[in-house]
Amino acid sequence: MAKTINVALIGQGFMGRSHSNAWGQVNRFFKPELQSVLHTVYGMKGEPTPEFAKTWGWLHTSDNWETLIKSPEIGLVDIVTPNFMHAPPAKAAVAAGKPCACEKPIASTLDEAREMAEAAARAKVPTFVWFCYRRTPAVALAHQMVKSGKLGEIRHIRASYLQDWADDSVPMAWRFKKESAGSGAHGDLNAHIVDMTRFVSGLEVEEICGAMATTFVKKRRIIEQDSGGGIQLSDEQMRYAKAGGGAEQFGDVTVDDAVSFIVRYNNGAMGTYEAARQATGNQNANGFEINGTKGSVKFNFERMNTLEYYDATQPRAYQGWTTIMCTHGGDHPYVANYWPDAHLIGYEHGFTSMAYDILQVLNGKEPTVPLPDFNEGYQTARILEAALIAASEKRWVLLDSVK
Amino acid sequence: MAKTINVALIGQGFMGRSHSNAWGQVNRFFKPELQSVLHTVYGMKGEPTPEFAKTWGWLHTSDNWETLIKSPEIGLVDIVTPNFMHAPPAKAAVAAGKPCACEKPIASTLDEAREMAEAAARAKVPTFVWFCYRRTPAVALAHQMVKSGKLGEIRHIRASYLQDWADDSVPMAWRFKKESAGSGAHGDLNAHIVDMTRFVSGLEVEEICGAMATTFVKKRRIIEQDSGGGIQLSDEQMRYAKAGGGAEQFGDVTVDDAVSFIVRYNNGAMGTYEAARQATGNQNANGFEINGTKGSVKFNFERMNTLEYYDATQPRAYQGWTTIMCTHGGDHPYVANYWPDAHLIGYEHGFTSMAYDILQVLNGKEPTVPLPDFNEGYQTARILEAALIAASEKRWVLLDSVK
Amino acid sequence: MAKTINVALIGQGFMGRSHSNAWGQVNRFFKPELQSVLHTVYGMKGEPTPEFAKTWGWLHTSDNWETLIKSPEIGLVDIVTPNFMHAPPAKAAVAAGKPCACEKPIASTLDEAREMAEAAARAKVPTFVWFCYRRTPAVALAHQMVKSGKLGEIRHIRASYLQDWADDSVPMAWRFKKESAGSGAHGDLNAHIVDMTRFVSGLEVEEICGAMATTFVKKRRIIEQDSGGGIQLSDEQMRYAKAGGGAEQFGDVTVDDAVSFIVRYNNGAMGTYEAARQATGNQNANGFEINGTKGSVKFNFERMNTLEYYDATQPRAYQGWTTIMCTHGGDHPYVANYWPDAHLIGYEHGFTSMAYDILQVLNGKEPTVPLPDFNEGYQTARILEAALIAASEKRWVLLDSVK
Amino acid sequence: MAKTINVALIGQGFMGRSHSNAWGQVNRFFKPELQSVLHTVYGMKGEPTPEFAKTWGWLHTSDNWETLIKSPEIGLVDIVTPNFMHAPPAKAAVAAGKPCACEKPIASTLDEAREMAEAAARAKVPTFVWFCYRRTPAVALAHQMVKSGKLGEIRHIRASYLQDWADDSVPMAWRFKKESAGSGAHGDLNAHIVDMTRFVSGLEVEEICGAMATTFVKKRRIIEQDSGGGIQLSDEQMRYAKAGGGAEQFGDVTVDDAVSFIVRYNNGAMGTYEAARQATGNQNANGFEINGTKGSVKFNFERMNTLEYYDATQPRAYQGWTTIMCTHGGDHPYVANYWPDAHLIGYEHGFTSMAYDILQVLNGKEPTVPLPDFNEGYQTARILEAALIAASEKRWVLLDSVK
Repeated sequence: MAKTINVALIGQGFMGRSHSNAWGQVNRFFKPELQSVLHTVYGMKGEPTPEFAKTWGWLHTSDNWETLIKSPEIGLVDIVTPNFMHAPPAKAAVAAGKPCACEKPIASTLDEAREMAEAAARAKVPTFVWFCYRRTPAVALAHQMVKSGKLGEIRHIRASYLQDWADDSVPMAWRFKKESAGSGAHGDLNAHIVDMTRFVSGLEVEEICGAMATTFVKKRRIIEQDSGGGIQLSDEQMRYAKAGGGAEQFGDVTVDDAVSFIVRYNNGAMGTYEAARQATGNQNANGFEINGTKGSVKFNFERMNTLEYYDATQPRAYQGWTTIMCTHGGDHPYVANYWPDAHLIGYEHGFTSMAYDILQVLNGKEPTVPLPDFNEGYQTARILEAALIAASEKRWVLLDSVK
Repeated sequence: MAKTINVALIGQGFMGRSHSNAWGQVNRFFKPELQSVLHTVYGMKGEPTPEFAKTWGWLHTSDNWETLIKSPEIGLVDIVTPNFMHAPPAKAAVAAGKPCACEKPIASTLDEAREMAEAAARAKVPTFVWFCYRRTPAVALAHQMVKSGKLGEIRHIRASYLQDWADDSVPMAWRFKKESAGSGAHGDLNAHIVDMTRFVSGLEVEEICGAMATTFVKKRRIIEQDSGGGIQLSDEQMRYAKAGGGAEQFGDVTVDDAVSFIVRYNNGAMGTYEAARQATGNQNANGFEINGTKGSVKFNFERMNTLEYYDATQPRAYQGWTTIMCTHGGDHPYVANYWPDAHLIGYEHGFTSMAYDILQVLNGKEPTVPLPDFNEGYQTARILEAALIAASEKRWVLLDSVK
Repeated sequence: MAKTINVALIGQGFMGRSHSNAWGQVNRFFKPELQSVLHTVYGMKGEPTPEFAKTWGWLHTSDNWETLIKSPEIGLVDIVTPNFMHAPPAKAAVAAGKPCACEKPIASTLDEAREMAEAAARAKVPTFVWFCYRRTPAVALAHQMVKSGKLGEIRHIRASYLQDWADDSVPMAWRFKKESAGSGAHGDLNAHIVDMTRFVSGLEVEEICGAMATTFVKKRRIIEQDSGGGIQLSDEQMRYAKAGGGAEQFGDVTVDDAVSFIVRYNNGAMGTYEAARQATGNQNANGFEINGTKGSVKFNFERMNTLEYYDATQPRAYQGWTTIMCTHGGDHPYVANYWPDAHLIGYEHGFTSMAYDILQVLNGKEPTVPLPDFNEGYQTARILEAALIAASEKRWVLLDSVK
Repeated sequence: MAKTINVALIGQGFMGRSHSNAWGQVNRFFKPELQSVLHTVYGMKGEPTPEFAKTWGWLHTSDNWETLIKSPEIGLVDIVTPNFMHAPPAKAAVAAGKPCACEKPIASTLDEAREMAEAAARAKVPTFVWFCYRRTPAVALAHQMVKSGKLGEIRHIRASYLQDWADDSVPMAWRFKKESAGSGAHGDLNAHIVDMTRFVSGLEVEEICGAMATTFVKKRRIIEQDSGGGIQLSDEQMRYAKAGGGAEQFGDVTVDDAVSFIVRYNNGAMGTYEAARQATGNQNANGFEINGTKGSVKFNFERMNTLEYYDATQPRAYQGWTTIMCTHGGDHPYVANYWPDAHLIGYEHGFTSMAYDILQVLNGKEPTVPLPDFNEGYQTARILEAALIAASEKRWVLLDSVK
């Protein structure tokens, strides 16, 4: 008889679908010793929670997250609400002694992030932040390669997460408001690449050596339904908006469209980061290049099944960038649980693989590669905050000065 | 209240997992009007059918496919047995008036294929062959582009499906025996590219203008468990075999390792096809290039989310191969049901999307792009057979001469 | 004091420019012990030979090739006339005891090719055929790799040379007439890839296992000036022609537009070849892929500075296609004489590097990699002829039957 | 009778070869109305100037550049000495009323650069800085596209020039000393990408928003012969050095290995720049990506014959990155003078094409695309200087404050 743990999902939306799928697929593909039960999904009154539950196989629904989190039936709280609504349920969960998994970025303010990390430390419960790109096989392989010394000493990291969905015609949504999103491309996209490069390189940022933040589209048309952030507007909403729907109502965009910054790591290496939403031609170009004295790796999520590797220890005549198809079950993380070689996996598998590692940890096992907890989420938030200070005060910022 | 249809799955193995996943995911992602119920999975006595059923959510199991197929509860029969075991349940299903979906290639002999097509025609029930690559968004887009005239008149098709799993160390398995597999790379891989290019181009083969078939590894070591075709051996089995496990027992390989052939289409265009299992460096290079007078398209499943398109009607200064990321919900087939732009999908989604189109057809709707039925599967089998005749008789073969 | 050899160039046109450039640049970049002197260029009466000579630095001109070839001042005869005009000067040169370099394909008929090879054998003078792609650093590297065993046993070769310049609007030119060109894409393009794959693989074709030749555009508009083969028409001529210039005069195209064939090599490996001039999107896609048991290589002239290499002897986790930038002076053939790493070289450098190797051989040294002589040109011509027989007689053809 | 102009080349080395080749090839390929004469090459006493002259076809040699520049026979002074030796001959040339072409970066200090620009302005003679990448057909095309509005409003530029030749084993050379080189990767590489992006985008930098400069290898072994900057050491020198040759002598590296900076342009767009010499895997990755509201372009010199273009005005279903092969004579700059389509050109052709445009300007014609003069070189130097100030003072720097 398999062991099981009851999951409560706090929220729905795009991430609600991703997580629901993961909690279902993980049992089918990984057959973990500790299996997830899709127990209860929370939605506000008026949200189509029953339909969501039926589609994804949640056994119960709730419109009171405070009660739900405390329920003795719940073994794991999973949070997928908008950023500003991460901290309250997360703190409630750890206060109730419940393991808690929270979507990224960990919170919409650094204060909240620090409070969550402190609360988790006090409660001594396992926590997790869904930086799911760590579990892309190519990224996990890069982590393993750096750790085993294959790259030598790292000298350069350049990371960027470029999208192009937010052109001038896209209407106002929660993602464009500071009060709901905390920040724009910075928290949405730089958060991912900061976590991913810390994970892969093992380096820590010591100083922000310059930063720039900007908002290209300062006003956006308001339409009636705001279902969740541009990227999630339905096709009809988008067409309506692009056609000028919503008439003369415009709202101020109060978050960044793009943020770039330069860093110095603890070993002296140089790093650059850039997040953008109007980088035409890049739909989901979430990637990095890391150069070490013995080799380099390069990754772009738009070709997520492959890792580029330059092995500078090979005979010079045969050196070059090698495109590793990271789908070989015997050799690459996670993929043995999916399909044969080069029968590609996709975006959603990062969530499924992370669900597996969470279940492993809750079952007392080691995860395949390290999982980020609330403290890790807080460390990433400190770097993001330091970059914003550097941009607004037009100077370098030592990370130690930002808590 | 959603309408439902009960599916019976005949077989397990690699394809059993793919289909089971599809019948489950289709309801969650597509929310079709007619929903699939994973009703009963068939396995031979001694197979771990209950465990398979539990993992994938099949409500019942059966070890008697003849009875199962006739059961009035079953609305759709889905066949995933080895090739030589396609025809009996398929003919039984259509004889019982049941819609039937069958894995590819349709059968292990041309006679069986013809009988299946004839039986389906007599029974007038919907039939389907799982040439699931038709539903890769990039391939479906290519089909739409050719149909709308964007390529002009087609002059060249070159298709190849190259793999490299079958090196000399791989032990004997059902895929290497003519009696169980019918053929080797030819039926396994050429079947896919023949169907795919017929689908995309709309052209028909009129003559085979030369062909070569060969077997590079003529004997393979026999190991105890033969769980299904090299590609599906467990890592332990593979390591055992590669280490020389199975001692002095060798069996004759009675299928091809590679088959190439050249064709003339009904409009005079030239085509080339190649299937191989020892094409080192190609794990799943299932692709084609089609050149027309107005443009060209290129596809390789190893980069399945993209289609390469050359638009020769653009101003010459800006012409070039365009890498279309086929993940834009509003514009590319199927993907609106999955994730945002460039949040890639994978191998399994082809099955899910095909399950959706099957459910649509069974519900009286049009599929997104045409589905192959038993007759289509038979037409593809005729082409494959003609190529084998051309290879063994060392001459050109008119397709009309092969029935 | 450097030794020198006087070169006589027979012909002008596109290849005349390429060779003239090579004979000049070779001294500047390679500083060979035996240096070339651009002595005399031959042109028919009425051709702008003096202007050509002045531009490229030829010291003298001649309108009588028979006399020129016999001149005791000439040390090397270099032939760049249209294909049907290769044999007469080539035979005259070797008869006069002169080393002779001839453009490819060696001749416009197999008889001529055989006669040239026999004449060269009798005369015991060094001869060369300008299959200059052998000297592309990436191709030369591939040759060295196969020779050193890095690919193991070769099982597959697939080669194609695809262009797209010959669309329906291109007017009649010598390249479209059998009497002047011998054949179309076959002699122009397949000649290159047959030579290149023989060179790289070291394998010999034993049998043609099917072939197809076709002409898509059967009539082409005649315009007044026919300056040399479509690809060399001036922009004004092309615009004139495309606009319908030349009125109602059409001529029959008597050569192929495309030829595909399949071969069996002497070790049992399978090969495919395709040449095309209407493969939209491919301007100069001259390439091959070779799969061996230990590794594979892939080349496309459109990315001529790189070779793709798959090393199947690496640990499986790090295997992949490696893009080798073949520009490292210490390690890759020829490039030390040009520029620093990744300061790319181009099309013309193949000629310059070949000129160097010719000078080395004439000076009693070894060439960097083997040079093709008239006999090699004849062997390639036999393969091309066998393919045409296979296409016209719709059957396999043993190479031994074609002399 | 063609008009001619006598060129004096001040210096030899790597750039001496590039320029000599260009002044020779330009007449052969472009047949300009005003033709260059390779009149005199200058070298210091003891340098092998006669041999250099003989190889490249210079008619005369000189070991006194001051006299040479004033010679009435000289019509154009071309400077290829190390950076610190640019200003003296350049100022002498313009003072003598001679047109002057100078290698990049314009000088080794900002003061020198300003003096050169001022001297040129006073003298009213044509001046040129050899930012030759402007003349790469792909880069020139990008310039034309931006100018014609195809990219819309530009929002992002990210440029980097990455090399990897300067690993720890490379010995001391003039390029590693501030007194001879001025700076390291910054002046060598950032100079190129600053000029190139200014040229392509038409934007001007208004503020440096953060910068970091670093030197990873702080000491390098001294070997006897210092022939010119790591990248130009002979293979033997390099092997000697890497084997520890030069024994216990080490010198301090006084220039940067890598410099990154962020900029704000005059239209509010964001830009990032990075130069590096230890970016393992990048031999000559000189490139940029520019995102506009209507489209984007991407370039990398390692694939110099192609430009990547994303046209956001195409129907969404067909949008993607288009790889334009910039080799079509009728449509792409310069290439009509070289070879047919996709018969690639290389590094040296940028110099030849620039030589052509210089000759055009000296003949009173318009260049194909704008040429950079001393003032342009000075503007680029101001940006580089501002970045160094930003790095050393750890703050943003307004460009207006740097003269």
